[in-house]
Amino acid sequence: MRGYAITEEAQPQAVACDYDKTRSLSEALAEPLSDADATVQSMADASPAKWHLAHTTWFFETFVLRDHLPGYQLVDERWPFLFNSYYEAEGPRYARSARGLLTRPSLAEVLEYRARVDEAMAPLLDRPELADLIALGCAHEQQHQELLLTDIKHALFANPLGPAYVRTAPVATNIAGSETWFEHPGGIARVGHDEAHDAGAFAFDNEGPSHRALLEPFALAGRLVTNAEWDAFIADGGYRTAGLWLSDGWAWVNREHVDAPLYWHQDAHFTLGGWRARDPHAPVTHISYYEADAFATWADRRLPTEFEWEAIGQAHDATAGHQLDAAGAIAPAGSPGLFGDCWQWTRSAYLPYPRFRAVKGAVGEYNGKFMSGQFVLRGASCATARGHSRASYRNFFYPHQRWQFTGLRLAKDL
Amino acid sequence: MRGYAITEEAQPQAVACDYDKTRSLSEALAEPLSDADATVQSMADASPAKWHLAHTTWFFETFVLRDHLPGYQLVDERWPFLFNSYYEAEGPRYARSARGLLTRPSLAEVLEYRARVDEAMAPLLDRPELADLIALGCAHEQQHQELLLTDIKHALFANPLGPAYVRTAPVATNIAGSETWFEHPGGIARVGHDEAHDAGAFAFDNEGPSHRALLEPFALAGRLVTNAEWDAFIADGGYRTAGLWLSDGWAWVNREHVDAPLYWHQDAHFTLGGWRARDPHAPVTHISYYEADAFATWADRRLPTEFEWEAIGQAHDATAGHQLDAAGAIAPAGSPGLFGDCWQWTRSAYLPYPRFRAVKGAVGEYNGKFMSGQFVLRGASCATARGHSRASYRNFFYPHQRWQFTGLRLAKDL
Amino acid sequence: MRGYAITEEAQPQAVACDYDKTRSLSEALAEPLSDADATVQSMADASPAKWHLAHTTWFFETFVLRDHLPGYQLVDERWPFLFNSYYEAEGPRYARSARGLLTRPSLAEVLEYRARVDEAMAPLLDRPELADLIALGCAHEQQHQELLLTDIKHALFANPLGPAYVRTAPVATNIAGSETWFEHPGGIARVGHDEAHDAGAFAFDNEGPSHRALLEPFALAGRLVTNAEWDAFIADGGYRTAGLWLSDGWAWVNREHVDAPLYWHQDAHFTLGGWRARDPHAPVTHISYYEADAFATWADRRLPTEFEWEAIGQAHDATAGHQLDAAGAIAPAGSPGLFGDCWQWTRSAYLPYPRFRAVKGAVGEYNGKFMSGQFVLRGASCATARGHSRASYRNFFYPHQRWQFTGLRLAKDL
Amino acid sequence: MRGYAITEEAQPQAVACDYDKTRSLSEALAEPLSDADATVQSMADASPAKWHLAHTTWFFETFVLRDHLPGYQLVDERWPFLFNSYYEAEGPRYARSARGLLTRPSLAEVLEYRARVDEAMAPLLDRPELADLIALGCAHEQQHQELLLTDIKHALFANPLGPAYVRTAPVATNIAGSETWFEHPGGIARVGHDEAHDAGAFAFDNEGPSHRALLEPFALAGRLVTNAEWDAFIADGGYRTAGLWLSDGWAWVNREHVDAPLYWHQDAHFTLGGWRARDPHAPVTHISYYEADAFATWADRRLPTEFEWEAIGQAHDATAGHQLDAAGAIAPAGSPGLFGDCWQWTRSAYLPYPRFRAVKGAVGEYNGKFMSGQFVLRGASCATARGHSRASYRNFFYPHQRWQFTGLRLAKDL
Repeated sequence: MRGYAITEEAQPQAVACDYDKTRSLSEALAEPLSDADATVQSMADASPAKWHLAHTTWFFETFVLRDHLPGYQLVDERWPFLFNSYYEAEGPRYARSARGLLTRPSLAEVLEYRARVDEAMAPLLDRPELADLIALGCAHEQQHQELLLTDIKHALFANPLGPAYVRTAPVATNIAGSETWFEHPGGIARVGHDEAHDAGAFAFDNEGPSHRALLEPFALAGRLVTNAEWDAFIADGGYRTAGLWLSDGWAWVNREHVDAPLYWHQDAHFTLGGWRARDPHAPVTHISYYEADAFATWADRRLPTEFEWEAIGQAHDATAGHQLDAAGAIAPAGSPGLFGDCWQWTRSAYLPYPRFRAVKGAVGEYNGKFMSGQFVLRGASCATARGHSRASYRNFFYPHQRWQFTGLRLAKDL
Repeated sequence: MRGYAITEEAQPQAVACDYDKTRSLSEALAEPLSDADATVQSMADASPAKWHLAHTTWFFETFVLRDHLPGYQLVDERWPFLFNSYYEAEGPRYARSARGLLTRPSLAEVLEYRARVDEAMAPLLDRPELADLIALGCAHEQQHQELLLTDIKHALFANPLGPAYVRTAPVATNIAGSETWFEHPGGIARVGHDEAHDAGAFAFDNEGPSHRALLEPFALAGRLVTNAEWDAFIADGGYRTAGLWLSDGWAWVNREHVDAPLYWHQDAHFTLGGWRARDPHAPVTHISYYEADAFATWADRRLPTEFEWEAIGQAHDATAGHQLDAAGAIAPAGSPGLFGDCWQWTRSAYLPYPRFRAVKGAVGEYNGKFMSGQFVLRGASCATARGHSRASYRNFFYPHQRWQFTGLRLAKDL
Repeated sequence: MRGYAITEEAQPQAVACDYDKTRSLSEALAEPLSDADATVQSMADASPAKWHLAHTTWFFETFVLRDHLPGYQLVDERWPFLFNSYYEAEGPRYARSARGLLTRPSLAEVLEYRARVDEAMAPLLDRPELADLIALGCAHEQQHQELLLTDIKHALFANPLGPAYVRTAPVATNIAGSETWFEHPGGIARVGHDEAHDAGAFAFDNEGPSHRALLEPFALAGRLVTNAEWDAFIADGGYRTAGLWLSDGWAWVNREHVDAPLYWHQDAHFTLGGWRARDPHAPVTHISYYEADAFATWADRRLPTEFEWEAIGQAHDATAGHQLDAAGAIAPAGSPGLFGDCWQWTRSAYLPYPRFRAVKGAVGEYNGKFMSGQFVLRGASCATARGHSRASYRNFFYPHQRWQFTGLRLAKDL
Repeated sequence: MRGYAITEEAQPQAVACDYDKTRSLSEALAEPLSDADATVQSMADASPAKWHLAHTTWFFETFVLRDHLPGYQLVDERWPFLFNSYYEAEGPRYARSARGLLTRPSLAEVLEYRARVDEAMAPLLDRPELADLIALGCAHEQQHQELLLTDIKHALFANPLGPAYVRTAPVATNIAGSETWFEHPGGIARVGHDEAHDAGAFAFDNEGPSHRALLEPFALAGRLVTNAEWDAFIADGGYRTAGLWLSDGWAWVNREHVDAPLYWHQDAHFTLGGWRARDPHAPVTHISYYEADAFATWADRRLPTEFEWEAIGQAHDATAGHQLDAAGAIAPAGSPGLFGDCWQWTRSAYLPYPRFRAVKGAVGEYNGKFMSGQFVLRGASCATARGHSRASYRNFFYPHQRWQFTGLRLAKDL
């Protein structure tokens, strides 16, 4: 996805380890896919799996090998045009919406490309001056791992045959029935990534600077909203009641004929394991901001702000919960903490923090330039590589988008 | 435009006075228009002048006369379908984008409609229990006065003959050449409309509740950005430098072939007085949020947040500056304070304040439902009825919109 | 509309007479319209009434006064940009789809424009060398008279108030109940306008050259299809039976949700006299080619070719039947001959006749350049100025268009 | 493609032979393609290669095996939904524009599908009562062979890497430099497929009934227009001269920014053998009807009618010339006769012949329902299976389409 900041300290050994693990996971995720599966693109927001595999490799090839390894020859000098995503500073590029037409290079050629770049990267992994850049490339690739999974899910869904990405059984849920709340007394909280305090830990540039935020007393729900609760919203006419919706959301509902979360059909929903019966106790997912907001209004609650979420999230283990460890029929289950299962919509628009300045150059294009029109999501999903997210992590999407594993956790004023 | 809250206290005499003054001003603004001028609609965002005149009247007829005057008969029972804007609770309505096809009722019939409603309103103007509702109807009509002017400007601009709304001379500018800054030390500021403190003063619901905001030290420019400064931005390749733009903004620039503010052509620009040479010292106007943000980045400054603006604005006279008093060749001149000339883009997304709750019923549809995807503007413009705005006032538009009198005032960190 | 050829002979007296009569009729047709009525444009295919009045005047001003009256000064030199329709050779022009935004010049100014051009034309009306050109301008203006009526009908229909163009009563119908056929034995027929034979009679260039056409034995229905017959088609599921439709037509039906002729609503239809009950015995009108073809298939008949129609039409009086004589609540009634009431779709694509060559220059743009994608209609409608049409006359529209007075007359093989 | 008529007589042996040859050729054409190549769809007009392979098989499975082999079980009962093209009578079907998302079934599975259907077909190939149906399935598959080639060409063109379908060398051209004409004295010609005369020969339903056509004296060019001639048209401003174009064509040129035939770039063009230098003496191809017509106007010639072409074509060997025999870098070369290299636009709209009646049922949907908005092309192209076309053969496309091997042969009046 979109960006990073170069931190002060680095731990080369850890980086080397992450590099191999990250790269291997990407290939494991692609393993169930045919050449054709890896090539198609089901909508402009999505990209082919093959493209994700190549783009993350292009990132290392460009910003590490090309820029830091004297004499390095590109594997194919025509490919940067294909595999640059949106870095204006890196020159023109192939139209995003047509990525699904690139039958060449083949999946096998892309895997070969990965191997050649990995081979060239190997001697650089313990170079301290590159540690931050490599950490960043790994974090970047983890973002694309999540996109690869959500994009292939969307593509397979388009096929009336409903093919499964993998056939393994889904994880059982364990969301407690009782409603608990994390309460907060309000006051000034410190939010954002603090480079001084978290020296050596990676974070994207949009997570900083660390700063103070003023909170009013509030409570954050102890669990995510469930499929059963969403069924009640539908049964109560949620999708037909204009008064529950934001104006843009109501227009979207009517224009797109929306009457349920994405992937729902009757009592089933489409998952990476194919069509399955919905578990009523599992967290609802694949909902837009508009839906999340309408549900909260219907429930007489509201969405949290991103800083409310972060103030509570700081006390939770960001590596716990149902997150991505390996390929499988990935779907939300029930996680006791704040992380895992689904990204959680907040009512905060995605905007720069006080004194935020984008880094100059291509690197600076990561996050800052997306700061209009989108909303922040917090937490981590079942498709987020474990270890990738943290309390200060800011994910962001447009309010109508819902092909990610997006859910909601309610908040209320105290 | 869009909304209000019913305040606790009311002053009937003041209201009666405002009612007549407000209604008269609307009619004065329409005076230079022919029946055809008042009928056309140049884009979906705009409405015909005639429609503004009728819609504001429908508002009083519906929420005051129909709801509070027993036995009142609608002037024409088919008209609510035509003149309801977006109140879902008031039933179906005519498609917004086709308002320009309504040649009937004619402008003369709409003026007659206004007269009949005014006549029916007269005995109600001193009724204390209706004072808030009537104040609100007046504020609502003032918003439409501004839209009437910006919409007719857009419609006349579409005509290659470049007809003037009126032929009077524009106001001379007096923006001081020297750069001054309003400095603020940071800390906790109280923002928003405080009903307890401002008892009896009207405010829209989106201006409250009053609450605390935490500010970092900053400075706000003593004047608006000028046409001459914008010319320098253009000359420096501002519209061709991707790195200055938000990603959505850059896409907009390229898709719409934007290379200057709206209404600019060579050294002239289109005004309500027709095509005129641009005054280099006058404030730039008709710019989108994207343009404002790109300019600020180019100038190595930033846009203020809405609370930074408000913290400074509280010390200024909201009724001073170049604002609307009468029909004329309305255009930004130069105003010494924070109000007047142009609405000023802030970097704050338009979102609810802490503990904000929309009012139930049709009235509640005014402001809350627009809280996604838009940005807040503060101040007042040359087309804002004097007395309409205040320090807590929140105007809001989508980031690409620029047919309003929109400008910018820079900010910087201290 | 679209084109003409200059004939060899001319009769100045007749021309002068036609000129005044034609010009007067246009103004009479505009008489019931307000300035706003005359300004709006309800779709890109239509034009404002005011524009028709001005464009036909521009035609005389450009091709007669400017080109043939030394020293003539244009009434307003900015207007040709506005009132040129599609003559590429006459330079750039205002976008057709935005004609409805031209509130200036006003209807009154356009009528003044007409008067000034008429005054300048007066001394030229008896000049033999201009007779053909003037005849052509009159025929051109008659085409626009019909468009003015169909365009204003479409615009008024868009208004939920359903305003009538005029309030006069519709004409009673007299279509005979019995089914009669005009039979033809087949063989070689002569079709098209024959300059040698019809010397002095006006015809458009697309009606020639006269040539031979080979016909197989056929019969043409003695009357038009009626509303009652169309009701039977609907009742039999005509609009829901894919097998009756051309593929493009079926896509159109589904895309546009078509389930009846344009202007139908329940048992009523919108007419130039406002909403009226439908007369079951009146000819059906406002149908597309797709609908006409589907109906014919359903009825186990077919549409005639244009030459079949012409071979029969040559024996009928082209000035008889229900055609336009004056402004009124114009609608199809029932005419005994082949002309009047409705234009009749043929199954002939609009293509050039053998040895047809477009005239060089602006004049040549009239007809030839439209010869792709459209179908020929024959006859004349209730909105066609009496005397305008003839047996060789070729009207043409795209197969989805139906805002003209379009109907059908069935044919069958013998 | 689109349709057929069942002829009276049949020759089982010939059919069996054609069946195997036709089926084998399809598979040979797919042989150079990867699974991904065979899956993508570059525009709504095109289909994936895999889909062509499956659809043609579905045709035999549905109309022969399902309807005529008692007890036959579909290979996969979910597949007809995917592989039906447009037969409304065969029920709902997958959206055409989304065919490129069908990664499953894979190319390998589709080839297995083909093998299983072929196996089931084997015992039926000598059944006389099925001979016509099988002949028709073969002709249908030959149409899809041509589409497969033009569709894959379009898809590979979208890839900036410009991959070749095959790497073999193109065929040398031999168009004679001298201009010769086939002259015709005019008179009544017999055109269309004559079942009585051509008993046993296959033809599509749209080629009949045989009937008489009246021709005026004319001449048809002895060869196709060449790339060099097209270069002269471009150099003379052909694409910038409004007066040469049909009105719809001129709008298309400007809307699509057309300034050369499809696949041209500077002195090269994209071929099934990849990017190649253009041979100036080779026939121009990949032009739209609009372009063909504009060129003819520029050259002071015209396009022939379909019957003019057929009257000359009857004297030529339809199996001669450069047509498809095997997979390769297929491109127009130069053929001395009327057949081969390129389909040739005629100025005839695609309409039914006198007394044409579509067959009832799914079979009847083949050709008749496309008879609006398209133009007829005659001849055969380098991608037409040799033996598929004939003098009476009617190919048809919309006037803007040009991804087929479309060229032009000029005509003139005598």
